[in-house]
Amino acid sequence: MTEAQGDIGLIGLAVMGQNLILNAADHGFTVVAYNRTVSKVDHFLANEAKGKSILGAHSVEELCAKLKRPRRVILLVKAGDAVDNFINQLLPHMEKGDIIIDGGNSHFPDTNRRYAELKEKGIYFVGSGVSGGEEGARYGPSLMPGGAPEAWPHIKEIFQSIAAKSDGEPCCDWVGDAGAGHYVKMVHNGIEYGDMQLICEAYDLMKRVGGFSDKEISDVFAKWNKGVLDSFLIEITRDILAYNDTDGTPLVEKILDSAGQKGTGKWTAINALDLGMPVTLIGEAVFARCLSALKEERGRASTLLAGPSSTPKITDKQAFIDDLEQALYASKIISYAQGFMLIREAAKEYNWKLNFPSIALMWRGGCIIRSVFLAEITAAYRENPDLENLLFHPFFNKAIAKAQSGWRKTLGVAIEAGVPTPAFSTALSFYDGYRSKQLPANLLQAQRDYFGAHTFKILPEYATEDRKVGDYIHINWTGKGGNVSASTYNA
Amino acid sequence: MTEAQGDIGLIGLAVMGQNLILNAADHGFTVVAYNRTVSKVDHFLANEAKGKSILGAHSVEELCAKLKRPRRVILLVKAGDAVDNFINQLLPHMEKGDIIIDGGNSHFPDTNRRYAELKEKGIYFVGSGVSGGEEGARYGPSLMPGGAPEAWPHIKEIFQSIAAKSDGEPCCDWVGDAGAGHYVKMVHNGIEYGDMQLICEAYDLMKRVGGFSDKEISDVFAKWNKGVLDSFLIEITRDILAYNDTDGTPLVEKILDSAGQKGTGKWTAINALDLGMPVTLIGEAVFARCLSALKEERGRASTLLAGPSSTPKITDKQAFIDDLEQALYASKIISYAQGFMLIREAAKEYNWKLNFPSIALMWRGGCIIRSVFLAEITAAYRENPDLENLLFHPFFNKAIAKAQSGWRKTLGVAIEAGVPTPAFSTALSFYDGYRSKQLPANLLQAQRDYFGAHTFKILPEYATEDRKVGDYIHINWTGKGGNVSASTYNA
Repeated sequence: MTEAQGDIGLIGLAVMGQNLILNAADHGFTVVAYNRTVSKVDHFLANEAKGKSILGAHSVEELCAKLKRPRRVILLVKAGDAVDNFINQLLPHMEKGDIIIDGGNSHFPDTNRRYAELKEKGIYFVGSGVSGGEEGARYGPSLMPGGAPEAWPHIKEIFQSIAAKSDGEPCCDWVGDAGAGHYVKMVHNGIEYGDMQLICEAYDLMKRVGGFSDKEISDVFAKWNKGVLDSFLIEITRDILAYNDTDGTPLVEKILDSAGQKGTGKWTAINALDLGMPVTLIGEAVFARCLSALKEERGRASTLLAGPSSTPKITDKQAFIDDLEQALYASKIISYAQGFMLIREAAKEYNWKLNFPSIALMWRGGCIIRSVFLAEITAAYRENPDLENLLFHPFFNKAIAKAQSGWRKTLGVAIEAGVPTPAFSTALSFYDGYRSKQLPANLLQAQRDYFGAHTFKILPEYATEDRKVGDYIHINWTGKGGNVSASTYNA
Repeated sequence: MTEAQGDIGLIGLAVMGQNLILNAADHGFTVVAYNRTVSKVDHFLANEAKGKSILGAHSVEELCAKLKRPRRVILLVKAGDAVDNFINQLLPHMEKGDIIIDGGNSHFPDTNRRYAELKEKGIYFVGSGVSGGEEGARYGPSLMPGGAPEAWPHIKEIFQSIAAKSDGEPCCDWVGDAGAGHYVKMVHNGIEYGDMQLICEAYDLMKRVGGFSDKEISDVFAKWNKGVLDSFLIEITRDILAYNDTDGTPLVEKILDSAGQKGTGKWTAINALDLGMPVTLIGEAVFARCLSALKEERGRASTLLAGPSSTPKITDKQAFIDDLEQALYASKIISYAQGFMLIREAAKEYNWKLNFPSIALMWRGGCIIRSVFLAEITAAYRENPDLENLLFHPFFNKAIAKAQSGWRKTLGVAIEAGVPTPAFSTALSFYDGYRSKQLPANLLQAQRDYFGAHTFKILPEYATEDRKVGDYIHINWTGKGGNVSASTYNA
């Protein structure tokens, strides 16, 4: 019988899996590695893993045999059937109290299901978001575990050891029950979609309106990275724009401008629609990727569709850049405010107790959206964990008030120039809508009652004995038609 | 035994059901009416249905007994379980070749399922969109039937008789297989969401930026209703804004500005995300309803969040209105272009043969989005049924080119004034993005490759021997990290 000396097992030796193993080994844990194509195990052991506290397994059975009790196994495999397949392979070799952790980008309803199924078998299931790309996995990712709370004491030390640190605190804490960890990771990825789109719009405006070279744009991002926008994504953008190909020209300009969107960003937008939360910036970021993918159709459209007859001239480049920085910053505040609105609604809808300061801290370091900005969000939620909206906190409230002049100017220029800014624009529309006590939905409700007898409610200040607050009111707007309201049929 | 003399049966006597029955009776058909609460049947027969070719049934069995073969039964009940329940109640009293038509707002995947299940039992299932509200149902709705093609010859005469007519042509034709009818109705409703939101934004700008009274706004809509915007929704908006309450003030201003969005608009946006089509205007229209529903939170936000320091003055009211008309028209063109892009993609994805000129004609009259505009769309698709994009047709191409100056000016004013225009804005962003040969997604792909080794492709004009078109390319941007690309794991 093999001696059980492994602290944790990991299945799936793609780049994230390999790096996470190396990371755990660096922190003194003994890791047992397994991969469906077992030659990958041998190759890994003979190369990257050589001389480290890493053991190989050539079967799931061997993996389980080499692990201390309770067994802890992380799956880092493609989301979907592969997760269920490995769970089914693991089960015969596991005992009650053992722990299976899915570190992939599983959709949270799947995690809810797996959590419930494994609970019945006495196995503790954890769905953990892992973010940080290959670098993060290797040197400290953000980890967002949720699922069976019984598992947390057994994985806390390993998880918090290998996680990124922010001011000495690990970017990993227990998120909540069932699929809560994967849910928070999904929203993280949605926000990542938004952040990337915002950066792309800023780049596009500097290039197409400002006429900047990639080197100049890189320098702007370098400068921004020293201010309120200081973040991983701004930093790598600086580097990407400065990266020249072998011919001495910027490589980024040779890359096909067509992006995919089949994953977590789309799930976030769909979940926002399902929960009825206006997470417009992520929605537009996903749609911007869809539009980018229509590359050939856009090529034809570019020859057929006219742009504005004249375009604005940028005379004061510094003012243009400063306004743009404010547009990016304000839009980013809106995006995070929307993201936390969604999480707040999800906690209600799915009955999860979520810890907002911890979520912000988990995103503070290690992950793709890590930033100085998230330290401010962490501080805001620590100050008031029940904060209704990020925009109501004095820090962000003041920041966005200060930013709005540059934000509005930037959009004016973009519209005049004919350069698309779907994310900047939707952020401003949200801001102006959110701070509107009165929106024109009164007209919309009147229309619905007019054509479909869908009824409306009265504004409290106009309530009367006949029309009480909350009453469903139908008016016969035309004098024709019936007085039957559409109680059971929605046209 | 009861004599079978009914041409068609109808289950569900809410306002739409009653009106559709009266409509069919007016056209000489004998209709058998049934409702779960049977007292409603008796009440209907003794009142609205009196003296018409309408029979009552007190059970599903009686309903079926009173129908000629093949039996044709329309369900106008709440989408969801009620449809399945009535189908199950009908089945024991039906024979092979009989036809069940679901005229409710069912989600098209449910219609796909029911179509397949009933096909096995030899029953022809039709899912038909019905639009037009209570008025439409009574005097001529738009009907969008799809499902079992075998059913069409048996229902064509009834459907095309009771449907609205546009220049003598019925606004009803066979849409396509399985759930295609309900799919097209879903997109219709999504477009309806968009049209309503666009009108609300125009109203809001006239009210909050122009300082117009409701009477003045009504007059503007009246004028618009004589031009390119001539449509049912503009017409009723004119009437709504002119409708005074008993105290002589406009009723619309007393209506709670909070709208629901749990239905077909949401489905359209989710389907667009699933199919990867940038149907941004409907997406924003749905989110605008979500935001309107946060009425109390907006009330608090309105006291905390600052607006622009100065607002624009409208000196030339006529120019302001003319620009606004162009903004509304251009945005509407975008919305319909996006809607048809979605339908085109759905036809590919679900393997439906769809008839674009017929779809446009079905929406031309009877339904909520009926308009002169849809006559132009019908003409465009009749001229070229394979038209790649509505924007490529000379009529719309010229219209939007002409409209764009006013569109851009309107948005400039809205942004300066701090009045939200999410639908106008997203339409312009789409237009400017769609006509961009080059979008900034190249930077996004570089970012993804940088942090997650997700690879990118090369622009054709920069392809080389080492980097062919279509190759998945990974660059080690930092000099650190591995060369393993993320083939199986998506972070």
